[in-house]
Amino acid sequence: MKQKIKTALISVSDKENLSIILKTLNKYKVKIISSGGTYKSIKQLGYHCTEVSAYTGFKEMLDGRVKTLHPKIHAGILHDRSNKKHTQEMTKQKFPSLDLIIVNFYPFQKIITNSKNDKEIIENIDIGGPTMVRAAAKNFKNVLIVTNKSDYYDLANEIEKNNGKTTLNFREYMSSKAFGLTAYYDSMIANWFNQKLNIKFPERKTIFGRRFKKLRYGENPHQKSSLYINDYNDKGTGLDQLGGKDLSYNNYNDIFTSLEILASFKKNTATVIVKHANPCGVSINKSPIVSFNNAFACDPISAFGGVIACNFKINKVIALKLNKKFIEVILAKGFEKDALNILKQKKNLRIVDISKYKQKKQTSIKAFDGSFLLQEKDKSIFNKRDLKFVTKNKPTLLELKEIEFAFNIAKYVKSNAIVLTNNFSTIGIGAGQPSRLDSCKIALQKAKLFQASKIKNSIASSDAFFPFADGVLSLISAGVRIIVQPGGSIRDQEIVSVANKAKAKMVFTGVRHFNH
Amino acid sequence: MKQKIKTALISVSDKENLSIILKTLNKYKVKIISSGGTYKSIKQLGYHCTEVSAYTGFKEMLDGRVKTLHPKIHAGILHDRSNKKHTQEMTKQKFPSLDLIIVNFYPFQKIITNSKNDKEIIENIDIGGPTMVRAAAKNFKNVLIVTNKSDYYDLANEIEKNNGKTTLNFREYMSSKAFGLTAYYDSMIANWFNQKLNIKFPERKTIFGRRFKKLRYGENPHQKSSLYINDYNDKGTGLDQLGGKDLSYNNYNDIFTSLEILASFKKNTATVIVKHANPCGVSINKSPIVSFNNAFACDPISAFGGVIACNFKINKVIALKLNKKFIEVILAKGFEKDALNILKQKKNLRIVDISKYKQKKQTSIKAFDGSFLLQEKDKSIFNKRDLKFVTKNKPTLLELKEIEFAFNIAKYVKSNAIVLTNNFSTIGIGAGQPSRLDSCKIALQKAKLFQASKIKNSIASSDAFFPFADGVLSLISAGVRIIVQPGGSIRDQEIVSVANKAKAKMVFTGVRHFNH
Repeated sequence: MKQKIKTALISVSDKENLSIILKTLNKYKVKIISSGGTYKSIKQLGYHCTEVSAYTGFKEMLDGRVKTLHPKIHAGILHDRSNKKHTQEMTKQKFPSLDLIIVNFYPFQKIITNSKNDKEIIENIDIGGPTMVRAAAKNFKNVLIVTNKSDYYDLANEIEKNNGKTTLNFREYMSSKAFGLTAYYDSMIANWFNQKLNIKFPERKTIFGRRFKKLRYGENPHQKSSLYINDYNDKGTGLDQLGGKDLSYNNYNDIFTSLEILASFKKNTATVIVKHANPCGVSINKSPIVSFNNAFACDPISAFGGVIACNFKINKVIALKLNKKFIEVILAKGFEKDALNILKQKKNLRIVDISKYKQKKQTSIKAFDGSFLLQEKDKSIFNKRDLKFVTKNKPTLLELKEIEFAFNIAKYVKSNAIVLTNNFSTIGIGAGQPSRLDSCKIALQKAKLFQASKIKNSIASSDAFFPFADGVLSLISAGVRIIVQPGGSIRDQEIVSVANKAKAKMVFTGVRHFNH
Repeated sequence: MKQKIKTALISVSDKENLSIILKTLNKYKVKIISSGGTYKSIKQLGYHCTEVSAYTGFKEMLDGRVKTLHPKIHAGILHDRSNKKHTQEMTKQKFPSLDLIIVNFYPFQKIITNSKNDKEIIENIDIGGPTMVRAAAKNFKNVLIVTNKSDYYDLANEIEKNNGKTTLNFREYMSSKAFGLTAYYDSMIANWFNQKLNIKFPERKTIFGRRFKKLRYGENPHQKSSLYINDYNDKGTGLDQLGGKDLSYNNYNDIFTSLEILASFKKNTATVIVKHANPCGVSINKSPIVSFNNAFACDPISAFGGVIACNFKINKVIALKLNKKFIEVILAKGFEKDALNILKQKKNLRIVDISKYKQKKQTSIKAFDGSFLLQEKDKSIFNKRDLKFVTKNKPTLLELKEIEFAFNIAKYVKSNAIVLTNNFSTIGIGAGQPSRLDSCKIALQKAKLFQASKIKNSIASSDAFFPFADGVLSLISAGVRIIVQPGGSIRDQEIVSVANKAKAKMVFTGVRHFNH
C-alpha cells in the first residue's frame, strides 16, 4: 500500500547531497525533524526544520547520548497505522506519525583507523541512530527508512513518481538494506571488541562485507558473483589496478593466494606464480630478474595464463620478458614508468600495484552450507629447535636455509603437497593428490620435463609425513638428496633407513602443513 | 574500576535459570525493574520487582512495541558516572542509574522456522531489547550487560566475588558478547529479508555463526579452530554422530565436500569417497553394495583414511566390507541395527547419520584476508538442448546418461579436472593440476593401476576446454571412447579431428565447471 509522507526525521553523519532530497520533501510539504549538525545543515540549505528536543519536549542530555530515545519518536515510527488501538493510543498521547527516517552512522571503521583512543572509539558507537533505523525498518508497512546517501536519487524519484507517497515494495527493499547496515555496523563493533580482547573464537562470529564490485561472473560464466570487502579504511582491497581488463573471480582467487605466499617472504626478493589457486613456480633471489626467471622455469606451461606476484618494482628488463609470455595478471610493488608503458602494450594484461596491500587477518574461514570453519592461520614454518636430523648425514647451514624455504612453499600447495627446490627456487610441485606417492610423481615429472639437471642434489619437502617408503624412494632414486617432512609415521624408521642407504639427508620438523 | 550494582533491569525471552541470578541480586539488595512475562516470572519466584511502566511513569503502548524506549531507561544506562555534567543532569531529571541489564531476545530463527506468516515474523523483530543491550554494552565502563542464560553462573560468581560489585574486565568481556549477539541477530534479520526479496548480492552482507563446537585443532595441530553454524533451527549441523572419535577440522571439510557431491544425486543410489577435499571414487548403481564396491575400486589406496558418504541405509553386508578398510568417517542415511553394531567395533570410526542433513544455500563464499567472494552455487550440469555432438559418431541415449554423470563429477573435482568413468562409476580422477594434460595423465595412471580393463570404452569428462590436442590424444590412445567437455578452445577443430580419427565420440556442453 502507498503511504503518504507527512513527517520525516533526518539525522545523518554524512551531510552530502541532502539538498537532493530536501527539495522534493519541501515540494510535498513534508515536515522535517532533526537535531545537531544535521539540523544546522538543513537550515543552512534554507529549509524549515524542527529540532528533536522541541518536538519531543525533552531536552537532549548526556552530551547527546540521549535525544531520540524517546517514546514520541519511537511510537511515531512503530505504530501500525491500520490498527485502531494503535491510532487511538497515538491520538491520546498526541503523538504524530513519523513516515520517513533518513539516518546514517558515523563510519565506525574510520574512527578505528584514525584514533588510538579507546574512549573516543567507544563514544562513537551510535545507539540512537541504529534504534531509529531498526524501528523504521521493522515497520516498513508504514515507514520508509533510508540509510545511504546513494539512495537519495531513488528516494526523490519514488516520492515524485507516487505524488508524495511511497510504495510498499520500495519500503521493504529499503528495510532489507537497513538491516544489512545495522548487522554490518554491529559486526564491526563486535570485531573491534574481539580484537581488543584477543578473542579469536567468540561465542558468535559475523563476517561482514560491503559489496565492492559486481564481477562479470563467478568461477564460471553461468554463476553470478560479487566481491565484498570489510577493510577498515574504506579504501578498497589495497590492489591498485593500473591497466588491463577487469579482474575476474578466478583472478581474485589466484591473486589472494599469491599474496598470501608472497607475504611469507618478508626479507627476500620473491616471485610467485599461481594457477588454479596453486603455486606453479616460486623463487627467491637477491636479483629480481633471477627470481623472476627461476619462478617461471619451474613450469612454464602451467604459468601460461597464470598470476605472477613480485614483491619488488618491475623494471624495463622484466617488463620485456613478461610481454613475451601470456599471463593474466602481474602484481608488483610498483612499476617503473617505462616498464609500465611496455606492459600496457598488452591490452588485456591486468597490471596491479600491490604497494598498499597489507595482510591483516590472524584467522581464516572456510564457509560451507550453513556453517563455517574458523581457524588460526597457519603462520609458523617450523621451530628450529624442534628439528630432528634423523639421518647419518646432516644438512649444512645453507642447506638448512633452503630446507626452510622448501617447507614454507609446501604450506601453500594444496595437500598432499610435494615441493622440489634447487637454489631457492621450486623445480617441481606436486599438488592436490589424495595419495602422497602421486604428488611425488607429479613433482618429479615436472622437474624432469623442464629442469632435469637440477633434480640431482635438490631438496624435497612434504606437507605431511610419508605413510610409506615408496614416495621417499621415488624421490631419492630420481636424485633428491635432502628431504624435509614432519615425521610421525609408524614407518619412520624404514623411511629413514631408505634415506640412509642412499646417503641422503632427512629432517623431521614435527609440524604438519595441510592446506585444502 | 569496580562498579556497585544497585539497580538491574531484566527482560528475557528465555525465562530459564532466572533464580540463579535473582538469589544473588537479592542478597546484595539490588532493585529489579522488569515488565511483561519476565516481571511475572520474577514475582512467581518470590522476588520483589518494579514494572518498567511504573518506573518510567510512562504506560507501555502499541502492544508493547514501546515500553523501554524511554529517556529514563536509556539515560540510566548511558550516563558516565565519572562525568560531573552527566551526574548533574541525572540528578536534575531525577533519573537513577541502571547498573546491570539482563536481556535476551526471542530467537529469530525459531520464528522463521515455525511461522510462514510474514506479519508474525516481523512482529518478532525486537527493537527495545537490542537498544538496551547496545546501550549497556557501549557503556561497559559503568554498566554490565548479560545476554545469555549460560552466563548467569559467571554473573553470580562475579558479584559474589566482588561483594556486590563487578569488575571492568568482566563488563568489557560481556560487552564483546553483547555486540556479537546484536550483530548476529540483525544478520539473521537481514538475511531473512534478502531471501524473501531474492537479493543474492546485497549492498552489505554478513555471514553469521554461533560457535557450535571447539575443535581439537584446525587443519593442522598447531592451529586452533572452531566450527560455527547458523542454521537448522538451532539443532546443529544436521549430522548425527553415532560413534567414533570426535570429528576433526579435516573431517568436516571432507564431510561437507562429500555431502555437496551426494546432494547432486537426487534419484540415484550413490557412494562418494572424499580425501583431501577431492572425490577419489564416486559410483551410482541400483544396488547399494555395487555402488559401494565400485566407488572403492576407483582408488582403494587413496580411500585409505578417507570419508565415505552413502545416500542409503547401511546394512550388515556393507558394514562387514567397511570394517575391512581403514576409513575415517562413514556418512549414511541410517544404519541397520546389526550394521551399526559391526561398525562400532572399530572404536575410532566416526559413524554419522545424515538423514536430517539438508542442503540449503544458493550461494557459496570464499573468504580471504579482509574480503570475500560471494557467488551463486554451480548448480547446473548442462542443458541438454545446448549439447553439441561434434564428432561423426554420436553417443547413444544410455551413453548420454553416463556423459551427464561424468560431467557432474568433474564439477566437484578441483580444477583442472579430468574424470574417467565406466558403468556410472569413476575409474580415474585427475585433480588440482595447473595443466590439463597433467590431469589427463593422473586420471589415466589411476585407471591403469587399479582397473586397466575398464579404460577401453570409458568416458572422459573435462571441467574446462582442452587448450591443446595433447590431452585428448592421451585419453584416446589409452582407450577412452567418449569425451565430454565445454568446448570453446581455438583448437577445437584440431581436437575434434583427433577424436574423429580414432572414431571416438565427443560432446561439447557449452558449460564450464571450474572449482578451486
